[in-house]
Amino acid sequence: MDKVYHHNQTAQNNSTIKKVGILGGGQLGRMLLQAAINYPVETFVMEKDEHCPAAHLCHHFTKGDISNFDDVYAFGKGLDALTIEIESVNVEALEKLEAEGISIYPKPGALKIIKDKIQQKQFYKSNQIPSSEFIVTQNKSELQQHLNFLPAAHKIAMGGYDGRGVELLKTNADLERGFDAPAVLEKLVAVKKEIAVIVAVDNNNNTAIYPPVDMVFDNMLNLLDYQVSPAGLAEKVLWKVEAVALKVVKELKSPGIFAVELFVDIDDNVFVNETAPRVHNSGHHTIEANYSSQFDMLWRVMLGYPLGSTEHILPAAIVNLLGEPGYNGEAIYEGLTEIMDIENVFVHIYGKKETKPGRKMGHITILSKEKQELIHQANRVKQTLKVISANK
Amino acid sequence: MDKVYHHNQTAQNNSTIKKVGILGGGQLGRMLLQAAINYPVETFVMEKDEHCPAAHLCHHFTKGDISNFDDVYAFGKGLDALTIEIESVNVEALEKLEAEGISIYPKPGALKIIKDKIQQKQFYKSNQIPSSEFIVTQNKSELQQHLNFLPAAHKIAMGGYDGRGVELLKTNADLERGFDAPAVLEKLVAVKKEIAVIVAVDNNNNTAIYPPVDMVFDNMLNLLDYQVSPAGLAEKVLWKVEAVALKVVKELKSPGIFAVELFVDIDDNVFVNETAPRVHNSGHHTIEANYSSQFDMLWRVMLGYPLGSTEHILPAAIVNLLGEPGYNGEAIYEGLTEIMDIENVFVHIYGKKETKPGRKMGHITILSKEKQELIHQANRVKQTLKVISANK
Repeated sequence: MDKVYHHNQTAQNNSTIKKVGILGGGQLGRMLLQAAINYPVETFVMEKDEHCPAAHLCHHFTKGDISNFDDVYAFGKGLDALTIEIESVNVEALEKLEAEGISIYPKPGALKIIKDKIQQKQFYKSNQIPSSEFIVTQNKSELQQHLNFLPAAHKIAMGGYDGRGVELLKTNADLERGFDAPAVLEKLVAVKKEIAVIVAVDNNNNTAIYPPVDMVFDNMLNLLDYQVSPAGLAEKVLWKVEAVALKVVKELKSPGIFAVELFVDIDDNVFVNETAPRVHNSGHHTIEANYSSQFDMLWRVMLGYPLGSTEHILPAAIVNLLGEPGYNGEAIYEGLTEIMDIENVFVHIYGKKETKPGRKMGHITILSKEKQELIHQANRVKQTLKVISANK
Repeated sequence: MDKVYHHNQTAQNNSTIKKVGILGGGQLGRMLLQAAINYPVETFVMEKDEHCPAAHLCHHFTKGDISNFDDVYAFGKGLDALTIEIESVNVEALEKLEAEGISIYPKPGALKIIKDKIQQKQFYKSNQIPSSEFIVTQNKSELQQHLNFLPAAHKIAMGGYDGRGVELLKTNADLERGFDAPAVLEKLVAVKKEIAVIVAVDNNNNTAIYPPVDMVFDNMLNLLDYQVSPAGLAEKVLWKVEAVALKVVKELKSPGIFAVELFVDIDDNVFVNETAPRVHNSGHHTIEANYSSQFDMLWRVMLGYPLGSTEHILPAAIVNLLGEPGYNGEAIYEGLTEIMDIENVFVHIYGKKETKPGRKMGHITILSKEKQELIHQANRVKQTLKVISANK
């Protein structure tokens, strides 16, 4: 911890306010900007919707299309650094900006690998990173040749997000739901646990790894129920998980923040499910629960500060607050008052005016030393707090 | 903690997004807006300087003079609620807005008492709140009649702020420095400790009190050195401090956040020094160190949510980051990299472009269970981190 810096050098590093842009203005951008308030930085956001969650929290908002070359290039041109809050950005523009000396987090090279699910699986394979067996399919008819590969997950190569673009194919009858576009067919793993690990990489290739998070699913609905951090893992498994996550970011060869999602199977083997090259839902608890949050950490990387501490202040659980099925319209947070009366609960509402079924409207963080208390309050939040609207 | 709310009522409470304004756009407004990001609220700021620390963090910024009746009235007219980050606002406009149904935090009645140091002292006296003996002086020549009252502090009635408007008068020769304007002459207390207590009051007169903070002064320079929370107080003294702080806010008859600064004398008597009717420097550690920060708490009050928990997650110290003597110009944060390498340190830079001697440029929070560690790191921060500029 006790490194010595020459004062001249330090002064030089901090003598100009950096201009940093974010492509996308959703909740991830919003929470990034919340963390930026602690540092000397000039912030820029580009997003199509000028009423998006992050629009009013930056120094400069640009209405634009993050998937459009010209928009991204024009937005990034005068900046010192640029980051993303979603993968569906124009990578070609980022490559040109990078060539012109703008620092991109993650590097376009890493983003390209991750953005295409086919390339992502091939990347794991060619780097001996454990990941489930897979077959590339170009269209629906090709799927028919791989009946003996089921049960498997079919994942569309480009554009999947937040559960969209993934189909579980268990029987031949399910093949109908497969994608008629380039995709990967991934053999199902006999999953005991799903784990996520956030890793930060700075410009000098130093890494900082957060304690793994236990993603607890509702087996009935196949929906993420809540997350607990740190995950309850045997030490041997924890080591594997950390080693695999570090290997992924090492081979991606890019500074930034990465969320590596992993399966632990019934034999305690570890497989990478997928990686996000950005701040991630599985790291939201770090805002209150860890010394340096994932958002704080990305600013440290982009502004050239030392990596922060990933240690827990207290263990945490988070519950995602999704738009209740059947409601579309101006959001009402039913039960919010009751939830805000629980002393160890932290509310994060994302400021989206309209709710719709399954839309991410916020998240709730619970802090406690006791795992039972975390689970008890997570269930209470889930039963009490609903995002609805006046009209169905 | 486990209150039950009727769902209908809760839904109703949260079905419209409130419009809330802040008069003043300095660091207090900035940190208030940082906390507002967690809640559904539409934010407004008025301030003369459109490059002030809070200007880019609200939904609507208005350039205007917070001491001008017309500016304040026009700004507040369409809002649901209004708060302040400095006392020097136009109270008459707030009174008119209050009469028209806008909720003001604090109520103009409470603000009026506090804003005028003479009224403030008379308020303590008439409510039997312990505070040092005082004499009202209208001008400098009146001071001459009170030589036998020295040593005393002379405080200008209106417009003092952050140490300005206070003179310590120890000997007859010091009288020359007294104010030639309405002021109070306060008898000096034999101070053992200076303590600050933040208290929140909601719209139903419920109160929540934060653990008292120990304000440690540099005796050589008579400057606030650092603050430690919770303060090391004997239980009997703690009770007195809490009782006196609660009595102050009870008699002010206003919802909001209040910072009560107190002296504990060598005989463990407790005296109120002064009260601020707003979020306050002595509560900045609550951002990381307490479940609900003072900024979070004020939003809870203004948005009609239950009061949060004032409990510590971990004990904390804070160091104010002041502009180094002798430097005027674009701020450089010398030593910042070294400080950001300490794992239990949190940096808050206020985003002021220009530094000047003594200007509040940021603060640093340190969390630790160990008081020795808090003091060690506070001293390290003070010795390492300096706000300078390229040109003297």
